[in-house]
Amino acid sequence: MSSKAITTRKEDYSQWYLDVVEAADLAENSSVRGCMVIKPYGYALWENMQKILDAKFKVTGVANAYFPIFIPKSFFEREAQHVEGFAKECAVVTHHRLEMDEATGKLIPAGPLDEPLIVRPTSETIIYDTFSRWVQSYRDLPLLINQWANIVRWEMRTRLFLRSMEFLWQEGHTAHATEKEANERARQMIEVYKDFFENYLAIPIIAGQKTESEKFAGADCTYCVEAMMQDGKALQAGTSHMLGQNFAKPFNVSFLDEKGENQFVWQTSWGVSTRMIGGLIMAHGDDKGMIMPPRIAPLQVVVATIFTNEKEKEIVSVVANDLVLKLKEQGLSVKLDDRDERPGVKFYEWEKKGVPLRIEIGPKDVQNKKAVLVRRDTSEKQIVDISKVSATTIDLLEEIQKSLFERALLYQKNKTKEINDFKKFEKFIAEEEGFVIANWCGDEKCEAEIKEKTKATIRCIPFEGSEADGDCLCGKKGKYKVIFAKAY
Amino acid sequence: MSSKAITTRKEDYSQWYLDVVEAADLAENSSVRGCMVIKPYGYALWENMQKILDAKFKVTGVANAYFPIFIPKSFFEREAQHVEGFAKECAVVTHHRLEMDEATGKLIPAGPLDEPLIVRPTSETIIYDTFSRWVQSYRDLPLLINQWANIVRWEMRTRLFLRSMEFLWQEGHTAHATEKEANERARQMIEVYKDFFENYLAIPIIAGQKTESEKFAGADCTYCVEAMMQDGKALQAGTSHMLGQNFAKPFNVSFLDEKGENQFVWQTSWGVSTRMIGGLIMAHGDDKGMIMPPRIAPLQVVVATIFTNEKEKEIVSVVANDLVLKLKEQGLSVKLDDRDERPGVKFYEWEKKGVPLRIEIGPKDVQNKKAVLVRRDTSEKQIVDISKVSATTIDLLEEIQKSLFERALLYQKNKTKEINDFKKFEKFIAEEEGFVIANWCGDEKCEAEIKEKTKATIRCIPFEGSEADGDCLCGKKGKYKVIFAKAY
Repeated sequence: MSSKAITTRKEDYSQWYLDVVEAADLAENSSVRGCMVIKPYGYALWENMQKILDAKFKVTGVANAYFPIFIPKSFFEREAQHVEGFAKECAVVTHHRLEMDEATGKLIPAGPLDEPLIVRPTSETIIYDTFSRWVQSYRDLPLLINQWANIVRWEMRTRLFLRSMEFLWQEGHTAHATEKEANERARQMIEVYKDFFENYLAIPIIAGQKTESEKFAGADCTYCVEAMMQDGKALQAGTSHMLGQNFAKPFNVSFLDEKGENQFVWQTSWGVSTRMIGGLIMAHGDDKGMIMPPRIAPLQVVVATIFTNEKEKEIVSVVANDLVLKLKEQGLSVKLDDRDERPGVKFYEWEKKGVPLRIEIGPKDVQNKKAVLVRRDTSEKQIVDISKVSATTIDLLEEIQKSLFERALLYQKNKTKEINDFKKFEKFIAEEEGFVIANWCGDEKCEAEIKEKTKATIRCIPFEGSEADGDCLCGKKGKYKVIFAKAY
Repeated sequence: MSSKAITTRKEDYSQWYLDVVEAADLAENSSVRGCMVIKPYGYALWENMQKILDAKFKVTGVANAYFPIFIPKSFFEREAQHVEGFAKECAVVTHHRLEMDEATGKLIPAGPLDEPLIVRPTSETIIYDTFSRWVQSYRDLPLLINQWANIVRWEMRTRLFLRSMEFLWQEGHTAHATEKEANERARQMIEVYKDFFENYLAIPIIAGQKTESEKFAGADCTYCVEAMMQDGKALQAGTSHMLGQNFAKPFNVSFLDEKGENQFVWQTSWGVSTRMIGGLIMAHGDDKGMIMPPRIAPLQVVVATIFTNEKEKEIVSVVANDLVLKLKEQGLSVKLDDRDERPGVKFYEWEKKGVPLRIEIGPKDVQNKKAVLVRRDTSEKQIVDISKVSATTIDLLEEIQKSLFERALLYQKNKTKEINDFKKFEKFIAEEEGFVIANWCGDEKCEAEIKEKTKATIRCIPFEGSEADGDCLCGKKGKYKVIFAKAY
């Protein structure tokens, strides 16, 4: 447990982020460059995310399966854009054992492989090779599969959760008889993600479509959910790709339709990852540390006892234990902190970890049949009759969940400006924080030029409100209204 | 779905096994040599195993975390036996990108790494490197961590679930202040596994200790759970290792004890894997396919409707739907099969998949307010009043669970012989099936000689009844009574 002070957001936002990851005990860098260790508290958060998402996927008819971690090099090469997108940063397995080198006395790679294997940076190719065997007839469609897996991308500049060489994710892969149905599925999963982000992570989402230059390597088009972090930058929180027949053709995923004719399937893939944890920190955290939205929190309530001697400890423990039991019966995730530590030390630890609600019980409280409830998000205190703690806790957790979302939404709205003049745009991006709504001509060159000059990218063409109503920043006729921002 | 006939066990047990994996739609070989694809039905079984085990681990105080997939070569080299055990079969990552070779126009590995990385064949080294940072004081102990992960071992002869290049598993890793406590934890986890195998998978277990020559590479000693398959061979179903201080020393996992003195920790590691699915098939399956014990079955009940025309279909569907709902309310996992297929086709499919109980409803049944319940394990049929189906189903599932275990236990007892004469031993192993209980002198050379001559190995020195009561097969004085068998 670190007891180092957390850098403030104002002072250095990047350092604040890393300090919170450490202070909340979520993850750390490992001895393998760019690979992280997800610590128990961070992993418990990931397990909650998995549980909720997994249930949501299953409701839409998706089943889980598992596919090989290795992808033959030749599979990658079959889809030109795909290999282009991933060849520059992938872990390549070239040997299958270690052997003693007699000259140096050291172990060296031996048993060279005929064909190198790539550690999956995404699994379209290996999964669709499998789909080509699973899909024969229109009766086998739609095929709706998801995989929870680890992924490796050889990132040069890494950052815990946000960009790491290895990360955990889910990747959904579906195959459909028609283009329309595939496109609907790709859009449906964006709705699932949006619902999850807004209603569980309390992070407001802008959903839309990526531009051609920002889409997934191998997709016809990429849909995305984008979120604003507290420094005004965008986080691409999840993507869903309409793959068209780009993989179906090289991997021969085809079926006999009702007329007995052979057709290629239409496909989608979609994913979210441990990156969401980074987003959660940056959307809600404050200078005291992490703030967990109650619906996703590994620990929703901590009951901290206050005492100055053994006798007091005994008295408050009875009441505290009883309360913990009652709260657990309500289905809440609760921890009792009755350690022999100063109250301040105990409070600070759970604040750093972002536990939504702290309940304090001291000898006086026991005497008065009261307890003190402290909200993590606002630091507000309430003194509550011990008999009403359980009901009040449930209300407060709902209230915190709602209030975190509203706060983030207000923040996003306040930090989003409509600007259609390039000078003003440039100045805003350079000097202020937030998203810019602007008309865009639809030209990739214009997009690239703006990116080069300002480092801002088009985050998406939003599903809602993307009709142009004026000229592009470059002066040409606007085609869409889009969201520009600097991004993680 | 395969409609190919399943080879009988008598005909060819190995082929029967592969046929059942295919017929039950559990897994298949992928295009990557030795790597399997776990299909949705097989993965749902794995998810059930995970859920139950995970809860059992957590009850004992274990928390989940996640560690890097890559292990630096130098980490392996720090524990001599460990590297010896794994160097011969590991995937070695040597490059971090693919680059176009201008001469051939092909992508070739580029960006050579300074130090090769090994794809984890087990994670002791990378985890204990992390533990060395997590453990400082006796207050940090015991440290009880588990990881659910994928593992790669470059096996030359692979077999779905039983031996594959990549498999899924859990690996628990703990650190303790004392040798005694570590040893107790290693033994405790064997009890957890035994409980899981016997009470959920319905597979009787012989728990014991491995001999020196069969223990884990780097352990002081290895405890194991061994199970008998229907061909009389043993399956090592799970292991728990007392690692002593063998890793603590090279990885410097040490702590200040209560006296302020620096001490190395004592460690354990323990794991079970997707291999359990192979064990489940071979313990219970029959010539019709898989048999799932109800407590682990992805589908516990299938309700299959019988009809010859649309009107009948409509009538039976109403009753069937109602029944499915009632069974689901009981917390059961139920599927309605109302496809327009012949009853035989429907029944056969769920038989192959081993669904413990089938409920048939046809127009006559509806008229008589009855349903037909058919046990997968015994094929016994019962005609039951529709109002009593729900209660009877619950009883029958319990009965099937119990009966599968008892059948397997009886089988194991009948196929276990006590033999203390080498000629008889050799003949038994060559011509019959099963386990042999025999006195053993404790000498590794004797053990190796028996293995060479008969292919039988010492599966374990059982926790119960291992006191020698006569001479070893080699004629020397017996030290232990052990279990010999051929093994997977």
